[in-house]
Amino acid sequence: MEVSPASASAHSRLTAFQVLQARDPGVAKRALAVRVNGELRDTSCEVSETDTVEPVLPEDPEALEIYRHSTAHLLAAAVLDLFPGTKLGAGPALKDDPKGGFYYDFLQEKPFTPDDLARIEKRMREMVKQNVPFRRVEMTREEALQKFSADELKCYFISEKGGENPSFYTLGDQFIDFCRGPHVPSAGRIKAFKLLSVAGAYWLGDERNPQMQRIYGTSFFTQEELDAWLQQREEAARRDHRRLGKELDLFSFTDEVGSGLALFHPKGALILHLLQEFLYEELFARDYQLVRTPHVASSRLWETSGHTAKYRGDMYPPMQFEDEPLEYQLKPMNCPFHIQIYKSQPRSYRELPLRYAEMGTVYRYERSGVQHGLLRVRGFTQDDAHLFCTPETLEAEIIGCLEFAQKVYATFGFEYRIELSVRDPENHAKYLGGPEVWALAEAALTQALDRLGLAYTRVEGEAAFYGPKIDIKVIDAIRRTWQLATIQVDFNLPQRFGLEYIGADNRPHPPIMVHRAILGSLERFFGLLIEHFGGRFPVWLAPVQVAVLPIADRWNDRAAGIAQTLRQVGLRVEVDARSEKIGAKIRQAQLRKVPYMVILGDREAETGTLAVRTRSEGDIGTFSMDDFIARVTREVQQRVITP
Amino acid sequence: MEVSPASASAHSRLTAFQVLQARDPGVAKRALAVRVNGELRDTSCEVSETDTVEPVLPEDPEALEIYRHSTAHLLAAAVLDLFPGTKLGAGPALKDDPKGGFYYDFLQEKPFTPDDLARIEKRMREMVKQNVPFRRVEMTREEALQKFSADELKCYFISEKGGENPSFYTLGDQFIDFCRGPHVPSAGRIKAFKLLSVAGAYWLGDERNPQMQRIYGTSFFTQEELDAWLQQREEAARRDHRRLGKELDLFSFTDEVGSGLALFHPKGALILHLLQEFLYEELFARDYQLVRTPHVASSRLWETSGHTAKYRGDMYPPMQFEDEPLEYQLKPMNCPFHIQIYKSQPRSYRELPLRYAEMGTVYRYERSGVQHGLLRVRGFTQDDAHLFCTPETLEAEIIGCLEFAQKVYATFGFEYRIELSVRDPENHAKYLGGPEVWALAEAALTQALDRLGLAYTRVEGEAAFYGPKIDIKVIDAIRRTWQLATIQVDFNLPQRFGLEYIGADNRPHPPIMVHRAILGSLERFFGLLIEHFGGRFPVWLAPVQVAVLPIADRWNDRAAGIAQTLRQVGLRVEVDARSEKIGAKIRQAQLRKVPYMVILGDREAETGTLAVRTRSEGDIGTFSMDDFIARVTREVQQRVITP
Repeated sequence: MEVSPASASAHSRLTAFQVLQARDPGVAKRALAVRVNGELRDTSCEVSETDTVEPVLPEDPEALEIYRHSTAHLLAAAVLDLFPGTKLGAGPALKDDPKGGFYYDFLQEKPFTPDDLARIEKRMREMVKQNVPFRRVEMTREEALQKFSADELKCYFISEKGGENPSFYTLGDQFIDFCRGPHVPSAGRIKAFKLLSVAGAYWLGDERNPQMQRIYGTSFFTQEELDAWLQQREEAARRDHRRLGKELDLFSFTDEVGSGLALFHPKGALILHLLQEFLYEELFARDYQLVRTPHVASSRLWETSGHTAKYRGDMYPPMQFEDEPLEYQLKPMNCPFHIQIYKSQPRSYRELPLRYAEMGTVYRYERSGVQHGLLRVRGFTQDDAHLFCTPETLEAEIIGCLEFAQKVYATFGFEYRIELSVRDPENHAKYLGGPEVWALAEAALTQALDRLGLAYTRVEGEAAFYGPKIDIKVIDAIRRTWQLATIQVDFNLPQRFGLEYIGADNRPHPPIMVHRAILGSLERFFGLLIEHFGGRFPVWLAPVQVAVLPIADRWNDRAAGIAQTLRQVGLRVEVDARSEKIGAKIRQAQLRKVPYMVILGDREAETGTLAVRTRSEGDIGTFSMDDFIARVTREVQQRVITP
Repeated sequence: MEVSPASASAHSRLTAFQVLQARDPGVAKRALAVRVNGELRDTSCEVSETDTVEPVLPEDPEALEIYRHSTAHLLAAAVLDLFPGTKLGAGPALKDDPKGGFYYDFLQEKPFTPDDLARIEKRMREMVKQNVPFRRVEMTREEALQKFSADELKCYFISEKGGENPSFYTLGDQFIDFCRGPHVPSAGRIKAFKLLSVAGAYWLGDERNPQMQRIYGTSFFTQEELDAWLQQREEAARRDHRRLGKELDLFSFTDEVGSGLALFHPKGALILHLLQEFLYEELFARDYQLVRTPHVASSRLWETSGHTAKYRGDMYPPMQFEDEPLEYQLKPMNCPFHIQIYKSQPRSYRELPLRYAEMGTVYRYERSGVQHGLLRVRGFTQDDAHLFCTPETLEAEIIGCLEFAQKVYATFGFEYRIELSVRDPENHAKYLGGPEVWALAEAALTQALDRLGLAYTRVEGEAAFYGPKIDIKVIDAIRRTWQLATIQVDFNLPQRFGLEYIGADNRPHPPIMVHRAILGSLERFFGLLIEHFGGRFPVWLAPVQVAVLPIADRWNDRAAGIAQTLRQVGLRVEVDARSEKIGAKIRQAQLRKVPYMVILGDREAETGTLAVRTRSEGDIGTFSMDDFIARVTREVQQRVITP
């Protein structure tokens, strides 16, 4: 007899699984969990006839987190089987984290060895094979605290997060942990997983607490996805900008200088310089005007801008001179300075738009723990600009910003994704600025994107309280995404600073202000670029563009002459005049990822030609000096991306 | 009977004047004061036969200060004649001060008006005509305090500076003030003087004390010198970079940002950008390597460098994060960072010299009172470089620095004077580093100067404790001198940071470090440049190079087309499309000191030529577009100094 959910519920309560099963057995079998009246639950939960039951399938956005969370439990169950008496900390799923897709913290005196990880992984696979079910257990707070009174860590979670009726999950005979769920029905559903590493982690992240062992792992719905991820991870490690930064002598951090404050060595500073020169070229071509402002300002400025009130925790601590009442603080942003320049004289609509640009180095407080090479630092240089415009010119300005970003990203070979953040349609009240100006700004952003035929995702409610914005994320060579550009309309600061311009009607109006950055932070972008190119910078950015490698010492002078000729046309050239075999010289140049090598031996001296290699293709044949110069300088001038 | 000093003194004591008179009446008449046994005294002082007596003549280095000090007394005497009851503060002579050659502070309720100054000056001239004598009066401390018990200010000086036998000077009937002297014999000796201005000044410089009126004036030995000085002063006022900075919209300071922290507006920031580009070009041509370092570092770095101990009062106050034990401070210098980069890996003599350059913005504490537009600020950008070299290459490096400076100064049309500061020959012990290395360094500096045939002054004892140096002062268009470049050998920091390189002998040696800056501070140099050029920047630096001025609105489109053509060859062009008379447009362009004006009317449209004016020569005739472009771009590329 086929039981329809409605009729069945009239007699007795069914599980969500049964409801799905009745509706479509294929779907029921694939469901990892369910949404009951919109709330995530186990498929084993009981439902009543009035409940709406929807399956969570692997393709749904919530699925991966549930799946990985369950894999974390599987890990913990295997650990308890193999290491009885181990105490459990937190065990969440992770998203887009290079360290893995989940972790579990364990309190266990003996450190887990790589062999232990292999044993644990083996035990996990056995439980998958046995298809051990996940079971939910509910009890009262008092029962729970009594049952686990010997486990201080568990009692902490029960007390802090358990509410009146804390829930627990079991998996096999040994494992039980406090958890809100939901979980997949049974271990057999977990198809592809891998344990990755062990790291130390303090209980509750506080270094005064006991140190636990955190095992990282990841899981995917298919082995193919897992393999692809592992391969990308390996590739990312090979490209790690911290490793390459050291190998290529680009930058360093030292304890003496302090946390998150990068020192750029000559080759790194040169690349930053070339990036800036490129941006200056684009800025001037687009009628931006440079401005230049200090790295520090009095507390008065930050009070007016609102940074002191909203942002103080992210700012460097204040400085107090003995003989001045005001405090000074390092700038976390450039905007208030550019506003001062706007305000330095009366403005007319005829002058607008004004586009002020600055490579402005700002300082922000990042806790030591979250710093990560150049990707998260305490001092960084924004390729910052502020546009002051009239409502009539806003759309054209947004188009200009988007075209600027397109040009820059194309130069580095980045694909990108665009997000448009607009008001929450349910609640217009929480935003600053009138509805007309919001409607105008949102229309300008939308139309600008449409005019350029750019695909974008519209996100309702993600606008800042002071205006709508466009964010651009780039996709790097190994398909990771990075938030870079932001184009942000601001109705707030012009009001706080009382900005105005005299309109064609001869009356004062507030200008519309747009904050925009294309690279965001030059230092972070540099880190990203190192990883994107794996250190193989395009010729125009390569610190050394050509390595001249004489095969024997007797060609050293000739090598110096060739280097001189190449330098005269503006190329960056080094000669490897060491008394080494040519093979060693080529290996050295390859390691340093020099795009071109010119090999110099008897034959080349006789014929007056150059034997040329590239770092990616090896030997590319012989060139006349003129042809070689033409090839390389073209690549520099056109900023060709050279593999 | 002619009395020789020796025989005279056998009978009775003579005055120093009589001694000089006996020796040479001409000299006696010209003497402003005397040195008795090396000590400055009045010519009226009594001397004994064993004393050595030398005249102080107008051409002697001490003369002007005595002369101006006496002029200050003359001023005070005139004030007391005209405004009886006025109380006196300090009244010193000044040297090289644009405000004047002396001042006197007066406590007087009624503010001095310009009319008062004229009356005072007139009274001073009368006293000069009457040749009123300066008279020295000595008394005991007790007598003095009793005599002036009604004058609190005078009692303060007597108590603080008078010693047991304070001295006083009178001039005429009213004036008596505490003063150590010496003075010229009588008012008739003061030939050329002028009162300049009145300013407020607090008693003892403390704003809690009563405000006094400070009258500034100056005096010279001849009217010609006075006239020349007044003219230069007027010219300097016309060129004042603070005034021109505002008129040309180059920069500003605001209370919100804070004291001594400049905001560079687009035109000013552009000039700084162009200055930097010029320097980068020169740096790369000379094999310097750019580095890039943060504006802040932990206290640890500043302790190792010795800045905390020696320099703390000139640094911005420390910043303390809540969760870190170290303090952080803004950098007053770039050197310790460059040293960190040197230290980042082992160095071989083969790599040296290393030349690290950075446009490094540093922050130093200047008291509010001493700030002066861009010439003395709290944040400025050094065109800084540090050379690390072996003893063998030091001389060549110094030659390189000197040639660099020559090139840069010639580009701006500066003459210069060079000073070489070496050890005190009397006391070698107070210097750091052995005698061999000092001898080597002093020889390298001397030989470098000689090789280049540069004239210089050798100053014994002016070297820093850590090494000898070369300073270069430039002379600007109105003959003022400015200290700019410094090339400084340093034996100290390499030692403090334990720097070394592996020599050809395979053993570690300390490198020789050279600090060098050519412009010193970009901001200050910019201020100086504004005054040097009076705002008439050479074409390559001019924010707007060409103003296109249509005679009537119907030529506005054509003007835009011409501007477009000029912009395509990289020129900075503005069109004045206002509905104004051509005369007004030319005046406006002149005021903004735009080097070239292109006038556009019927005739130019018909013939397709350009009618060109320059800011200095007016109409220079008609040009074809090609010829005009050729002329202007040549001036840009060659960085021609255009009047």
